[in-house]
Amino acid sequence: MAYEFLGPRKIVAGENSITSVPNEVRSLKGMKPLIVTDSGIANTGLLKRLTSILDQEKVHYGIFSEVEPDPGFAIVEKGKRVFLESQCDLLIAFGGGSSIDAAKIISFLATNEGGVRDYLGIAVFKNDPISIIAIPTTAGTGSEVTHNAIVTDKDQKLKLIIRSSQMIPKSAILDPTLLNSLPPEVIANTGMDAFTHAVESFFSLRSNLMTQQLSLSAVRLIYPSLIPFKENPKNTELASKMLHGSCLAGIAFTNGGLGAVHALAHPIGSHYHLPHGLSCALFLRQVLNENKEAALEKYGVLLETLGINSQGLSPEKFAEKLIEAVDAFMKRLGIPANLSAIGIKHEIQPMMIEDALKSPGLIANPKKLDRNKIEELLRSIR
Amino acid sequence: MAYEFLGPRKIVAGENSITSVPNEVRSLKGMKPLIVTDSGIANTGLLKRLTSILDQEKVHYGIFSEVEPDPGFAIVEKGKRVFLESQCDLLIAFGGGSSIDAAKIISFLATNEGGVRDYLGIAVFKNDPISIIAIPTTAGTGSEVTHNAIVTDKDQKLKLIIRSSQMIPKSAILDPTLLNSLPPEVIANTGMDAFTHAVESFFSLRSNLMTQQLSLSAVRLIYPSLIPFKENPKNTELASKMLHGSCLAGIAFTNGGLGAVHALAHPIGSHYHLPHGLSCALFLRQVLNENKEAALEKYGVLLETLGINSQGLSPEKFAEKLIEAVDAFMKRLGIPANLSAIGIKHEIQPMMIEDALKSPGLIANPKKLDRNKIEELLRSIR
Repeated sequence: MAYEFLGPRKIVAGENSITSVPNEVRSLKGMKPLIVTDSGIANTGLLKRLTSILDQEKVHYGIFSEVEPDPGFAIVEKGKRVFLESQCDLLIAFGGGSSIDAAKIISFLATNEGGVRDYLGIAVFKNDPISIIAIPTTAGTGSEVTHNAIVTDKDQKLKLIIRSSQMIPKSAILDPTLLNSLPPEVIANTGMDAFTHAVESFFSLRSNLMTQQLSLSAVRLIYPSLIPFKENPKNTELASKMLHGSCLAGIAFTNGGLGAVHALAHPIGSHYHLPHGLSCALFLRQVLNENKEAALEKYGVLLETLGINSQGLSPEKFAEKLIEAVDAFMKRLGIPANLSAIGIKHEIQPMMIEDALKSPGLIANPKKLDRNKIEELLRSIR
Repeated sequence: MAYEFLGPRKIVAGENSITSVPNEVRSLKGMKPLIVTDSGIANTGLLKRLTSILDQEKVHYGIFSEVEPDPGFAIVEKGKRVFLESQCDLLIAFGGGSSIDAAKIISFLATNEGGVRDYLGIAVFKNDPISIIAIPTTAGTGSEVTHNAIVTDKDQKLKLIIRSSQMIPKSAILDPTLLNSLPPEVIANTGMDAFTHAVESFFSLRSNLMTQQLSLSAVRLIYPSLIPFKENPKNTELASKMLHGSCLAGIAFTNGGLGAVHALAHPIGSHYHLPHGLSCALFLRQVLNENKEAALEKYGVLLETLGINSQGLSPEKFAEKLIEAVDAFMKRLGIPANLSAIGIKHEIQPMMIEDALKSPGLIANPKKLDRNKIEELLRSIR
């Protein structure tokens, strides 16, 4: 089976690599970038840190700091207007997945006719989108190297995907010092997002020799680093491992697909406004349990990758032991076991089931899951 | 320490993925590609297979099939003239490292003033080079995804490096069916090239979290596949693992550097006209032995990656055990232990030492090696 793989364009990494932004702006022939970020970043010292670097090297810029969590249509349309009115010619996405995804959507709206709705699904843009420099401030989404963006239909509580290789950021800057004041809960949730990307992309039916290796590399970096990083956010070595892990997981899933966890997580996340990594974490164990017969050997490979000896075990035991390990990992991370643990009274809406059934994650999931099973899984997180 | 990482552009892989060439030509807006290859490929059915696919889809093309092993200045200059005279606008590099490197050099000569000598070392091209579709027919060089090309000064018996991100092929096609009639010796030598890239890039002082993971992934694919592939060249699963391994190793070393093995292999290879992988293999054990104190822990990681349990061993034993494993691997592959085993009477020329001392591989090598040590290592392969 033939497959296509698109590599990341350019990654600049290391402590204080954010100082390379002016260089990247110039090498992309940008005269005035628009910084796309959220109010959280704007109110901490992070935005100031970026703008000081730009000021020092006399790079003019605009700022759009209104990105909301799970950005909706209105906010990206507004970002596009700010971009055009301030006569910018480049985008700097600065933040978590929401800011980077918003910048990706602004990048093509700014150069093409029509609105967001015209480009849902697999998109081809007549005109090249604006180039993006992506600077993640969390280690989770991988959006700095992917060709996907998620936009939320706030009315219908639906997360919608836009895919195009034309949106891959031209430059991704992985600076671990940007993560050193993240709250522990954000580290846990975003880290579980990256971990789930790595695990699901490994099991994906669309995975291949290249993406599987990247998925395993991501697991190798994330699994031993996430808990100590949560405890020591100022440790730049751990932050760097997490940033590289989430980046590798991003390259893996954008090329190799995801699975049922993501199909289930999107409707729950948009309905209850949960952090995406948390919605994923809630379903991970159940989906690993469902998939086991369909991918016994891969459970063994993953166990070995976690550093757990699988020799002497029967393949049937691989899955059991892996689920135990993931369960213990999430408990130590302080991830809630279900929705009631965070005070949410969960009632399944019919549209949650419809939404999950439409997800591309279900097609790539190693085991086919029918409507009844989807409903059962959606209930399982009560 | 900050670093830059350039990803591969696009990889198309899988059995018969060579049929995607017309598609790649069109997506790169090519009207008439020049196929750059060697007489070996032209005389087997391989070239015919490619041209039939192009004929069938009515893609016009030119052919330059004069690439020699370790191509020199004259042949790439000739390739440039053929490219311009036949009014081509795209390059298809079809073959081993020599053909792909030759195409890379033709790609910038065709659009820029001056000759090869004007671009040695790190090159910046005023005009964009011609786009390249690279189709490897061996699993070794990784050149389909690197930003290096090697050209040989035939008079001085010197291998010279040209580096530029502008030369990275736009598309790399990894088709395992193209490898199914490779002679066992070629499989062993090219496979050792890929294996050495993986190992040396892992130890390189210029390596980073990203390249180290890719190096280890390459080892994981190559080490268990190379010997069975040599015994069953028609096994496309093994061929595919080798192609992916050499490709991952290529991405790793082009971004993370190599080491002393390459510094020593180039002068020996160009003096005795040895296959590059064989020249590397001759030095691998000795260099692993030299470097051990400088990188004890990495030897443990590499041992685990080969699937050899290092638990309970003292770090001092890691290197010993790794060298034993590499030695056994090369013996089983039938790699000669030294030059006398292949009937070469080795006499060190002063310029071999000078050449090795100038190599960037020495700077990235974990242990500093002085002139005496270089001479000793060059002697060690008698």
